[in-house]
Amino acid sequence: MSTPLRNRRIRLAARPHGEPVPDDFLHDVVEMPSPEPGQVLLRTRYLSLDPYVRGRMSDAKSYAAPMEVGDVIVGGTVSEVVESAADGCSPGDLVLSYGGWQEYSLEPADRLRRLDPSVAPVATALGVLGMPGFTAYAGLLAIGKPQPGETVAVAAATGPVGSAVGQIAKLHGARAVGIAGGEDKVAHLRELGFDAALDHRAPDLPGRLADAAPDGIDVYFENVGGAVWDTVLPQLNEFARVPVCGLAANYNATSLPEGPDRSGLLMGAMLSRSLTLRGFIQREFVEAMFEDFLRDMTDWVADGKVQHTEDITEGLERAPEVFVGMLNGRNLGKTLIQVS
Amino acid sequence: MSTPLRNRRIRLAARPHGEPVPDDFLHDVVEMPSPEPGQVLLRTRYLSLDPYVRGRMSDAKSYAAPMEVGDVIVGGTVSEVVESAADGCSPGDLVLSYGGWQEYSLEPADRLRRLDPSVAPVATALGVLGMPGFTAYAGLLAIGKPQPGETVAVAAATGPVGSAVGQIAKLHGARAVGIAGGEDKVAHLRELGFDAALDHRAPDLPGRLADAAPDGIDVYFENVGGAVWDTVLPQLNEFARVPVCGLAANYNATSLPEGPDRSGLLMGAMLSRSLTLRGFIQREFVEAMFEDFLRDMTDWVADGKVQHTEDITEGLERAPEVFVGMLNGRNLGKTLIQVS
Repeated sequence: MSTPLRNRRIRLAARPHGEPVPDDFLHDVVEMPSPEPGQVLLRTRYLSLDPYVRGRMSDAKSYAAPMEVGDVIVGGTVSEVVESAADGCSPGDLVLSYGGWQEYSLEPADRLRRLDPSVAPVATALGVLGMPGFTAYAGLLAIGKPQPGETVAVAAATGPVGSAVGQIAKLHGARAVGIAGGEDKVAHLRELGFDAALDHRAPDLPGRLADAAPDGIDVYFENVGGAVWDTVLPQLNEFARVPVCGLAANYNATSLPEGPDRSGLLMGAMLSRSLTLRGFIQREFVEAMFEDFLRDMTDWVADGKVQHTEDITEGLERAPEVFVGMLNGRNLGKTLIQVS
Repeated sequence: MSTPLRNRRIRLAARPHGEPVPDDFLHDVVEMPSPEPGQVLLRTRYLSLDPYVRGRMSDAKSYAAPMEVGDVIVGGTVSEVVESAADGCSPGDLVLSYGGWQEYSLEPADRLRRLDPSVAPVATALGVLGMPGFTAYAGLLAIGKPQPGETVAVAAATGPVGSAVGQIAKLHGARAVGIAGGEDKVAHLRELGFDAALDHRAPDLPGRLADAAPDGIDVYFENVGGAVWDTVLPQLNEFARVPVCGLAANYNATSLPEGPDRSGLLMGAMLSRSLTLRGFIQREFVEAMFEDFLRDMTDWVADGKVQHTEDITEGLERAPEVFVGMLNGRNLGKTLIQVS
């Protein structure tokens, strides 16, 4: 009988108050059982770190049930089959899974998507060819509906969603304006082909945005909220569309900002300019659009029309600090942990 | 040579600060010239008073250019042709026009819609068969998209837009919840067939709304903003749609409400429940939907499936006080001034 596998895990020790701190995470090790019939035992190769996970650490009502204290932190993974008790899965197979912040996981084989390393590097299944890329594709095309000649703006534009938004907008004939924090990110946006790239940390963002979008903004893909949104809102054109995908600026907030209460002003802006604001989660579009996405995006990546960047850190134990850094914008591209 | 006609008018004397006061209006009388070729001289029979006019009295950026101080106050009218210098128009013809707050107006004949008194009382062209009815029809069907069994809520529900929203929702198989101010209005909503009718002035609106919409709210047709919106927002279901048609509660506001700033909370609600908020003005839907509207609504009114109420005051000179009263909810149904 072989030595049981030891599974290193990171669990939610406490619900964070504001920015997560080390004590909110519990690192432990447990023995890993063997797969039951229909299951496979997976070893995590890459773990995806995503902003939405901060929301699931809280118990506020949201689109997904919150994690419970004690749960392994959730996250998408690219994993390798180590042991299979399911037909059609063999050791060595690489799959897309949702294994979370741990080294090993057991999954029903029928919930896994097989990955072909010859099509694209497997890590892209967590980024440009995975959930973030699809979020960009579905939100931009189904809600933003950019038309040739229109202006599309996006913040957190070097992130895996934002960078895809800008590049897909360009492929649809729109002008892409990217907003990001820091000169290195702005330089990266220029390399990606954005028509304009703005550092939100530099002075006079409103004036620079007006220069970068002289005809106003037709689509704003909302990833961040906060001060950038306050700058964009007055520059939205009549009939502008705003896919609301994330509000990273608010995720660690512990209280509401001081007044006055500008929520009525926001409603008034929608009314006076016939704006559309639409919150969304990519999963509602999976059935209608995922197949098209995978075909289009695989082609675009293969042809170099959509570039992608992975920001990879080695070692599961570093996931908490890298996660907090990502919430603070210290990543460039898709944030991944190389677990094994 | 006949005595020239004397035209009584009401002009914008000053931009109101908050609620309009008598000194904001200038009553005067001028001689009326004869029509030029292609024009008709109209005598106003009914003048429509509408909340959007309050917005045009201000110089804030909005969907329509503001009135200038000195302009005749704008408004839709049902008018009678008094003198015609245009082919196809004869004295006695009744037309829909945009004559404003005055007894007579000159209009190009090609901008008028002929009214047939045998189809419906002509005053309905300013209400259920006119702009307010079309606003309800287009906003509800194109943006709200109520499905059978869903719950549609509307405030200012006894107004010409709100009452049509609720009744059209019922005709599409949805449950209609009306909100209005005062017991007489609530009783009227019950007569109109609303499934539930709530007085927003009575205590515990949130609790009563939850009882009236036990499965949550799928469509909220936004006419008023303010406290009613604050009550509705937490009760919106995932994927709820909010056509933003008016914000009457804010129109006379002179400053923003005290904090905290809840605009980020509003964005968060959109994100966590995949809400759609969409500001609109009926005119964007005219080309696509007005013909269908006129056919459907004429049938519904003729068949008694949509009821309508006009709240008519005699005398142009009373327009300012009636207008302010309407902004404060002191009307039941479509507010009209009978001018002649």
